[in-house]
Amino acid sequence: MATKGTVLIVSAHAGDFVWRAGGAIAAATARGERAVVVCLSYGERGESASQWLAGKSLEDIKALRRSEAEAAAAALGAEVEFLDAGDYPLLPSRELLDQLVTIYRRVQPTVVLTHPLLDPYNGDHPAAAKLAIEARILAQAIGYDAPGEVLGAPPVFFFEPHQPEQCDFKPDVLLDITAAFPAKQKAMECLPAQQHMWDYYTSLAVRRGVQVKRNAGPNLGLPVDTKGEAYMRFYPQVTEVLE
Amino acid sequence: MATKGTVLIVSAHAGDFVWRAGGAIAAATARGERAVVVCLSYGERGESASQWLAGKSLEDIKALRRSEAEAAAAALGAEVEFLDAGDYPLLPSRELLDQLVTIYRRVQPTVVLTHPLLDPYNGDHPAAAKLAIEARILAQAIGYDAPGEVLGAPPVFFFEPHQPEQCDFKPDVLLDITAAFPAKQKAMECLPAQQHMWDYYTSLAVRRGVQVKRNAGPNLGLPVDTKGEAYMRFYPQVTEVLE
Amino acid sequence: MATKGTVLIVSAHAGDFVWRAGGAIAAATARGERAVVVCLSYGERGESASQWLAGKSLEDIKALRRSEAEAAAAALGAEVEFLDAGDYPLLPSRELLDQLVTIYRRVQPTVVLTHPLLDPYNGDHPAAAKLAIEARILAQAIGYDAPGEVLGAPPVFFFEPHQPEQCDFKPDVLLDITAAFPAKQKAMECLPAQQHMWDYYTSLAVRRGVQVKRNAGPNLGLPVDTKGEAYMRFYPQVTEVLE
Amino acid sequence: MATKGTVLIVSAHAGDFVWRAGGAIAAATARGERAVVVCLSYGERGESASQWLAGKSLEDIKALRRSEAEAAAAALGAEVEFLDAGDYPLLPSRELLDQLVTIYRRVQPTVVLTHPLLDPYNGDHPAAAKLAIEARILAQAIGYDAPGEVLGAPPVFFFEPHQPEQCDFKPDVLLDITAAFPAKQKAMECLPAQQHMWDYYTSLAVRRGVQVKRNAGPNLGLPVDTKGEAYMRFYPQVTEVLE
Amino acid sequence: MATKGTVLIVSAHAGDFVWRAGGAIAAATARGERAVVVCLSYGERGESASQWLAGKSLEDIKALRRSEAEAAAAALGAEVEFLDAGDYPLLPSRELLDQLVTIYRRVQPTVVLTHPLLDPYNGDHPAAAKLAIEARILAQAIGYDAPGEVLGAPPVFFFEPHQPEQCDFKPDVLLDITAAFPAKQKAMECLPAQQHMWDYYTSLAVRRGVQVKRNAGPNLGLPVDTKGEAYMRFYPQVTEVLE
Amino acid sequence: MATKGTVLIVSAHAGDFVWRAGGAIAAATARGERAVVVCLSYGERGESASQWLAGKSLEDIKALRRSEAEAAAAALGAEVEFLDAGDYPLLPSRELLDQLVTIYRRVQPTVVLTHPLLDPYNGDHPAAAKLAIEARILAQAIGYDAPGEVLGAPPVFFFEPHQPEQCDFKPDVLLDITAAFPAKQKAMECLPAQQHMWDYYTSLAVRRGVQVKRNAGPNLGLPVDTKGEAYMRFYPQVTEVLE
Repeated sequence: MATKGTVLIVSAHAGDFVWRAGGAIAAATARGERAVVVCLSYGERGESASQWLAGKSLEDIKALRRSEAEAAAAALGAEVEFLDAGDYPLLPSRELLDQLVTIYRRVQPTVVLTHPLLDPYNGDHPAAAKLAIEARILAQAIGYDAPGEVLGAPPVFFFEPHQPEQCDFKPDVLLDITAAFPAKQKAMECLPAQQHMWDYYTSLAVRRGVQVKRNAGPNLGLPVDTKGEAYMRFYPQVTEVLE
Repeated sequence: MATKGTVLIVSAHAGDFVWRAGGAIAAATARGERAVVVCLSYGERGESASQWLAGKSLEDIKALRRSEAEAAAAALGAEVEFLDAGDYPLLPSRELLDQLVTIYRRVQPTVVLTHPLLDPYNGDHPAAAKLAIEARILAQAIGYDAPGEVLGAPPVFFFEPHQPEQCDFKPDVLLDITAAFPAKQKAMECLPAQQHMWDYYTSLAVRRGVQVKRNAGPNLGLPVDTKGEAYMRFYPQVTEVLE
Repeated sequence: MATKGTVLIVSAHAGDFVWRAGGAIAAATARGERAVVVCLSYGERGESASQWLAGKSLEDIKALRRSEAEAAAAALGAEVEFLDAGDYPLLPSRELLDQLVTIYRRVQPTVVLTHPLLDPYNGDHPAAAKLAIEARILAQAIGYDAPGEVLGAPPVFFFEPHQPEQCDFKPDVLLDITAAFPAKQKAMECLPAQQHMWDYYTSLAVRRGVQVKRNAGPNLGLPVDTKGEAYMRFYPQVTEVLE
Repeated sequence: MATKGTVLIVSAHAGDFVWRAGGAIAAATARGERAVVVCLSYGERGESASQWLAGKSLEDIKALRRSEAEAAAAALGAEVEFLDAGDYPLLPSRELLDQLVTIYRRVQPTVVLTHPLLDPYNGDHPAAAKLAIEARILAQAIGYDAPGEVLGAPPVFFFEPHQPEQCDFKPDVLLDITAAFPAKQKAMECLPAQQHMWDYYTSLAVRRGVQVKRNAGPNLGLPVDTKGEAYMRFYPQVTEVLE
Repeated sequence: MATKGTVLIVSAHAGDFVWRAGGAIAAATARGERAVVVCLSYGERGESASQWLAGKSLEDIKALRRSEAEAAAAALGAEVEFLDAGDYPLLPSRELLDQLVTIYRRVQPTVVLTHPLLDPYNGDHPAAAKLAIEARILAQAIGYDAPGEVLGAPPVFFFEPHQPEQCDFKPDVLLDITAAFPAKQKAMECLPAQQHMWDYYTSLAVRRGVQVKRNAGPNLGLPVDTKGEAYMRFYPQVTEVLE
Repeated sequence: MATKGTVLIVSAHAGDFVWRAGGAIAAATARGERAVVVCLSYGERGESASQWLAGKSLEDIKALRRSEAEAAAAALGAEVEFLDAGDYPLLPSRELLDQLVTIYRRVQPTVVLTHPLLDPYNGDHPAAAKLAIEARILAQAIGYDAPGEVLGAPPVFFFEPHQPEQCDFKPDVLLDITAAFPAKQKAMECLPAQQHMWDYYTSLAVRRGVQVKRNAGPNLGLPVDTKGEAYMRFYPQVTEVLE
């Protein structure tokens, strides 16, 4: 609706936004929109097993994850910020919440992407989602004391977790990322320690692409190699046309 | 997506489409789309209490409901067909299903509107919804023996029942019907026996309009008197843009 | 609310009403209300294993189940009717539905008790519940062609199935049946072939009684041997006092 | 059941109890019961947009909201207390929880009203509800160190949120507030900054009143202008009569 | 538990058992168990698009699907029966139900596999599942008039539908089919018209295999190329060991 | 699967593990497995009403509960540890979480038992469950700084709460504890202050035993006095055989 929108991605760890929302981000920036990724932590403890096995120090691991995430964001055409709030566990705090409110007011997102609210395999993901939602609500209130203009009501989408069914993740939006997929692939390749994930998320993009075609119907002429990403809306869609 | 779409509305009784989807229908025809309403029954037994109290015969009641529905459809710019399958109860049958498949193939809808799948107060509504969904699936199969081209995969939306929470109706689409509301109002006035419903559904349109504004955010400049209708999607939305 | 109410119990088989709703029935008749039990079948195939093992004929089994149910109903102070629609499976039909509508109009119940809508162990129970609900809706419509006055809107309660959690049975009403329990016990003893059930349902009454006390609070001075039955409402409670 | 009960209302902000439970409160006090409202905050940041726009100071806003809430409580015949715990966000704390336990023990409510446990639009509402429930449990334990008698087991009702379906709010109690409505109206008029809400909640009372009539049935002779409020039970109802 | 079990697979169409349960079937027969597949229809109308496009007749299509299914069953070491009840729609009937009961009594399965109860894309799948469950209940009743011994209580597992999340399919059993996968692959290759499915279901087996490893834990030494199939239980598991 | 497993039980209060999981624990130790019970608190405030009424001091109550729990654990063949984190409320903290992670790494459980995630009657139970789950996740991460080996992926089972339906507790595992029941009985008798619970949980064991038989089927020859305990899985079962 807005001529030039801004996507805000709230990611628990440094890599999450690449695997789960890389297509949406690349598609937005390709349309000329702004995309801002906020990594609440580097994923230094919970998602860096190979570096710990290699005997790296905490600071080295953080630096590595940061540089990888910066490269991946660049490949997607996105900006990236790091709040370094610590992971495993990612603990909510008044300060972290306030930082997020300030970012919302500064960035003025028209769309927000984050983790779903349930994940039996990773407590940081729901923690990040709750912070993202709570901060969005606070940023809307003129009485909340933070710099910047009051926020509108950007829609919030949850991106796909690793084991979707166990997270009660039922896709209600299937995003066609066929054109954006090469950029996502480049971004994934910025994370060389998780090479097995490249295949995994390519295969998932094919799977979701099959569903894009199945749900769109044959008459739209979608190509054989359609790729997709799945999302859930947290708020009802507002629209002028049912389609 | 299609330049000129076609909306198919599958309605259990002759009046349902007016109260619950009149705004969506009027908006579609105002955009130049085609709208085809299929009334499975006239609502002659279950939704014509005042006529029965007035001592009318079954045939008179059917004729009255038919002419009212024709007038209301005209006010919305829609075509209307009647299958006269009987109501209270509306019983599914192989023949009725086949009639619906044939309509799907003939009309080639790009969007389908019908009742939700649960209604503890009215068994005909879920019966109509199940028929609408089953027929849509059959019409997609080349092996199903009925005239006309095979159907694509039109999205299905459930319109709002009378007591939404009791029907597990959780709106995931809020449709702005502000511009279409005068036409809906005219259509409602074609049903004079249910005058108390005019106010009820106007008040509901205001209530859903408040939610349209609340969920769209203040920055969209929606007018004070925004009107809305609420819908649920049965299949995931397919899109190229998250918004 | 009504000074003298009437309870209608729609039971799939001849014994169901005793085990699951005997307390509620006895309590109602003790208050001077009327109770009418409708057994859709005798449970001759699905719930008469010991008689089949004993080599009884179908007609003998039906007669036995009928006389047992009559005795049990008498012990509860209730009337009982048998529709002999067959069980295992209990098949819905237009005729059976119509019989039920006619009973609703004749009996004019102020409260309805029946099975819950889900039971993975017994398809007849949900079938009976669906018939009971559908017939109640039809009986409310002046246009439905059946003798008798149009029905009001009696609340519907689901009684407890054998394996409640597997049937998504979450009690929202705990009925104190302490005073009515001796009558229920007598009614259970009218079903000698299922003697192991006497203990089972006495133990269940104790268990639900503990919950009655737990949820009522200590200040009500309920006795140590409080007995209970659990129910689910199908429609919202209408009341003038929150309590 | 108790001859003279006491209703405790736990409200996140100063105005919530008026819009959502004003009818229940006025009905209780009209019956001679006591009603005690506890406002955890004044709603000074999250629900006072017009005052912030008018340039008021935090202290002025709190004082204004307090005096309005006092006037509204008086109009409903209720007492009101303010815990001034801050809003947006309302943060749970050991101290706040302890204050609530002390109030429960002092007030000895026979009924508790609070917000539902889910609200995607306002994090303070669920926070208040969780505190109200947790404090109720603690107040029941003799081992919890707080003054006053141990609490019984008062039922807890959730009042209706602004967008009920999005909060998984499925009414299971419809309260007839027809007689209490004039008092609720007076109380609403004590909150002049939210004049648009007067209409909104009057319209909602009509809507819930229609459902009161629909679910009670025609035979009860409810008036045309029946008004209602909707509630959800958190614990099962304990009763001696199914009705 | 039983030394030599028997798996009964109730499949709506001729191909379903291959894609969705081929691994479980091959694993069972490799252990020396018996596997019996019952295809309620050939899938002649709904799942044979390419043959219809090629201008084949109904009888030719049925014959083709039958021979393919026989070959696939052989590759899995399973027997197969065809009830030819028609598809699109697969209509439940007393006769079909009775045929299934007779099969249950004859085959005496110790495990049952079938479709899940919900599928918004294919009405035949839930119809088959409901028949399979209803027939299992009837076959347990001594009073049901059919040849053979009364059935025990075999557990029922739902196999994975094409779009699992849309079918409320939440896997609660992850089956390791690594050793059985070559047989499944051979069976898939017996269905040459759906060659694109070979890849799709191989990719799914990898995906479920990743979850097998993730949920089993690293200490079990599962190989890198672990393959899996996902299932839902319809009844609670009975066991002597929690593991 | 492991030749000699280890069961870890995370219990909010000192008595919980006896009533709810005593059978599973006794069965495990009888098989030669190790069982380690961790009591987060003594239940000194919330579950020691009779001692408070008898005028005991806080320290005396803790000592009493500790010695009872030690005796009960001994009767079950289990070890027991006490973290003394306080109850009513049991407050989560970084320290408590860290203590649990350390225990996980030291004990290396192959199975975990804890409370379910919802309990409207007791906030400590879900608090304990959340801690148990979060600590299990952290203990799996090599980057989490705690002594001991990294944890595998032990399955987590929720044991049965006092009012199962109100806690959304739907048993998906029914454990046969017939052989272990005498040991459970002895353990219960170590808790003399709650003598009324002995009967209550014996009666529950009978009830769950009936369900064990019902779901296992008659062909397994289970004895008349089969006893059971009910559990819910938090993660999907991984298996090589569907049974």
